[in-house]
Amino acid sequence: MTSKSETLFNRKRLLGGNLSVAYKNPVKIVRGEMQYLFDETGRRFLDAYNNVAHVGHCNPRVVEAGQRQMARLNTNTRYLSDNVLAFAERLIATLPENLNTCFFLNSGSEANELALRLARAYTCAIDLIVLDHAYHGNTTTMIDISPYKHDGPGGNGPPSWVHKVPLPDQYRGPYRGVGSEIAGMYSQHVVAVVNTLTTNDKQLCGFIAESLPSVGGQILLPENYLAQVYTEVRAAGGVCIADEVQTGYGRIGSHFWGFERYDVVPDIVVLGKPIGNGHPLGVVITTNEIARSFNNGMEFFSTFGGNNVSSAIGIAVLEVVQQEHLQAHAASTGERLLAELRKLMERHACIGDVRGAGFFIGVELVNNRETLEPATVLADQVVNEMRERAILLGTDGPFHNVIKIRPPMPFSSDDVTELVTNLDQVLQTVGSN
Amino acid sequence: MTSKSETLFNRKRLLGGNLSVAYKNPVKIVRGEMQYLFDETGRRFLDAYNNVAHVGHCNPRVVEAGQRQMARLNTNTRYLSDNVLAFAERLIATLPENLNTCFFLNSGSEANELALRLARAYTCAIDLIVLDHAYHGNTTTMIDISPYKHDGPGGNGPPSWVHKVPLPDQYRGPYRGVGSEIAGMYSQHVVAVVNTLTTNDKQLCGFIAESLPSVGGQILLPENYLAQVYTEVRAAGGVCIADEVQTGYGRIGSHFWGFERYDVVPDIVVLGKPIGNGHPLGVVITTNEIARSFNNGMEFFSTFGGNNVSSAIGIAVLEVVQQEHLQAHAASTGERLLAELRKLMERHACIGDVRGAGFFIGVELVNNRETLEPATVLADQVVNEMRERAILLGTDGPFHNVIKIRPPMPFSSDDVTELVTNLDQVLQTVGSN
Repeated sequence: MTSKSETLFNRKRLLGGNLSVAYKNPVKIVRGEMQYLFDETGRRFLDAYNNVAHVGHCNPRVVEAGQRQMARLNTNTRYLSDNVLAFAERLIATLPENLNTCFFLNSGSEANELALRLARAYTCAIDLIVLDHAYHGNTTTMIDISPYKHDGPGGNGPPSWVHKVPLPDQYRGPYRGVGSEIAGMYSQHVVAVVNTLTTNDKQLCGFIAESLPSVGGQILLPENYLAQVYTEVRAAGGVCIADEVQTGYGRIGSHFWGFERYDVVPDIVVLGKPIGNGHPLGVVITTNEIARSFNNGMEFFSTFGGNNVSSAIGIAVLEVVQQEHLQAHAASTGERLLAELRKLMERHACIGDVRGAGFFIGVELVNNRETLEPATVLADQVVNEMRERAILLGTDGPFHNVIKIRPPMPFSSDDVTELVTNLDQVLQTVGSN
Repeated sequence: MTSKSETLFNRKRLLGGNLSVAYKNPVKIVRGEMQYLFDETGRRFLDAYNNVAHVGHCNPRVVEAGQRQMARLNTNTRYLSDNVLAFAERLIATLPENLNTCFFLNSGSEANELALRLARAYTCAIDLIVLDHAYHGNTTTMIDISPYKHDGPGGNGPPSWVHKVPLPDQYRGPYRGVGSEIAGMYSQHVVAVVNTLTTNDKQLCGFIAESLPSVGGQILLPENYLAQVYTEVRAAGGVCIADEVQTGYGRIGSHFWGFERYDVVPDIVVLGKPIGNGHPLGVVITTNEIARSFNNGMEFFSTFGGNNVSSAIGIAVLEVVQQEHLQAHAASTGERLLAELRKLMERHACIGDVRGAGFFIGVELVNNRETLEPATVLADQVVNEMRERAILLGTDGPFHNVIKIRPPMPFSSDDVTELVTNLDQVLQTVGSN
């Protein structure tokens, strides 16, 4: 095996320079097993944030399904095949009735790309409302609709058809707190965009949001926010897109899908990351009516989308989630994790907020609980110190001061103890600097 | 197993309606083995056009590599890993020296998306020259640069920054024949675009073309065309992108890459379809200089791109191509296939042209060899009749009258005989109607 320093050297030589490496002391991973990753020395790391490995790294049932199909057939959807349809059938069964037509792709970026094409085909409009700090993908058009990218370093701002509204962050956003009026204050910004468009004789294409914004800082939307926004958007002729790339498949514990938390039904649902457990997979699910409007003479075909292996893996992941009751596990174990983290707030003034649902959790670090001054440097130190203790975490949020905890779903109660005990110790050391 | 009619019914119910099914009498495929596919009754089909299964459906070496890695680790490139670098190293070794920096993605669409972002970052310009009838992907921006899509059914034409030049089709294009002046006549259209941009004080971003245009009708570019175009584009400050999604990895027999046929070196090379043998994989390879210009503060990260399994499969496919001398095989067997097809021209007036290189072949059917009236209906009949004889072919070209022959690379001399014998018989029956 190549030494770590040589690997790092080759990486700089062979790969694009704007691909970052996690941690100051990079980790070389050579093996995965459920919620654990192992480095080249055999050291075991507790994975507390790779949500892509949804049912666990190398989950044996998923591996077996992939291996078997790989040896049998892997071709495209212009031939008839049962497993892409079986996958579609099972996905649809988890969704509200009107979401009944599937398109298969190879990533969340591709899926969000298609979602936007569907919305445009249906509305014959292009003006789109997006949440500030949102991220929807790495293609040109997805960067256009992702403030996290186009307003960040190297970005050129949004195009004129993209309308940004404040991220409804009840901890740090323009309107704070838990009052029932908060949702309305945030949704008024959507109303304002709609009014401006109307004044300018423009049509609204729609609204897109992650059901729980992730890179925005592991945000839970205020109660009623999405319901109010969806009503306004639909009244203006737009469609509502739920980006469930980070939140679907039981992660939030209380519900299978993020949007269900808010008692709304989107017109288009976008899936990515967890549904293939690491295998390149994206899906868009929409209504008959929207799918029909897209069937305008131009074929939609993805060479790899919905291929036999991707479908077999997709089915296996969904089966594991359902048959092994991982949603209920995320609910109960996530609740304990949240409670333990909240206890840490009493002992560590740097923890400004602990929020989340199930295994979708953010711990926001601040230098001052009154001013909310983001503890960006501290968050970075904590994550790197935790890495030295073989626990993998990341940061998120506009100020990179939110520790994100989104572990593979098999994350156990013992893992919770290990994570919290170490975080406590690290905060004691680093946090008091 | 579900019956074929039930599968077809479920497909209409569950999938987007604008995903077409191959053949009037659809094929249900349940197993693949090198250049053969098997339907639900066990009937063997000779696959003569699925170029994605480059080294053969379920090639055992590729399957084994995927199976092994799948069970060991499949995570992202923010950790250090050897196999993504080993794949990069081997890819770069097949390319001219200055093409030395790799980006890994999950499809040709994603790879062309990134290629365009790289070109824009490097040139700070957006105006792009594209070939008529070209296809580069299914995302919004890729449809913008694909006349095959935006000028076809349901399309809305090109945006103002896309400049279309004639496809240099020496059989049917505006300038015909094999004279050395033909290349200049076609490349003058590129000069004209550059001049118009200059007049309007606009900068050129670049030029993109498939090295042998595929959906355009299995076209070989005239000698010197790319050399002349690349010179003009570079003189105007633009970059040259070679879309090798259809043509790379030895398919054309004479060379490993399509662009090598024309003795040019692109600035950006885009790979897709064959390199994963069906596994979702795309790669962009460019120069240090262009990669550096893209490293402007905005990270480029693909969740699945360059993951351990994709990399292991990528390495295996490349190794099979090289170690089993599939390029040389495509050269010799493809030459025999071309010769046999040309012999059919003597007996079938409907064959207007037979062209190709290696296993990248087009047989253009016409109703009249003088007027070149496209035999669209006949081509469709031929392909469907061949399907009844268990030989899989497709059509391409602006008039869907070009029979495309792009088999998996293990396609044998016996397969050539089977294909040509049956095509001869089918043309005798159908062609004389």
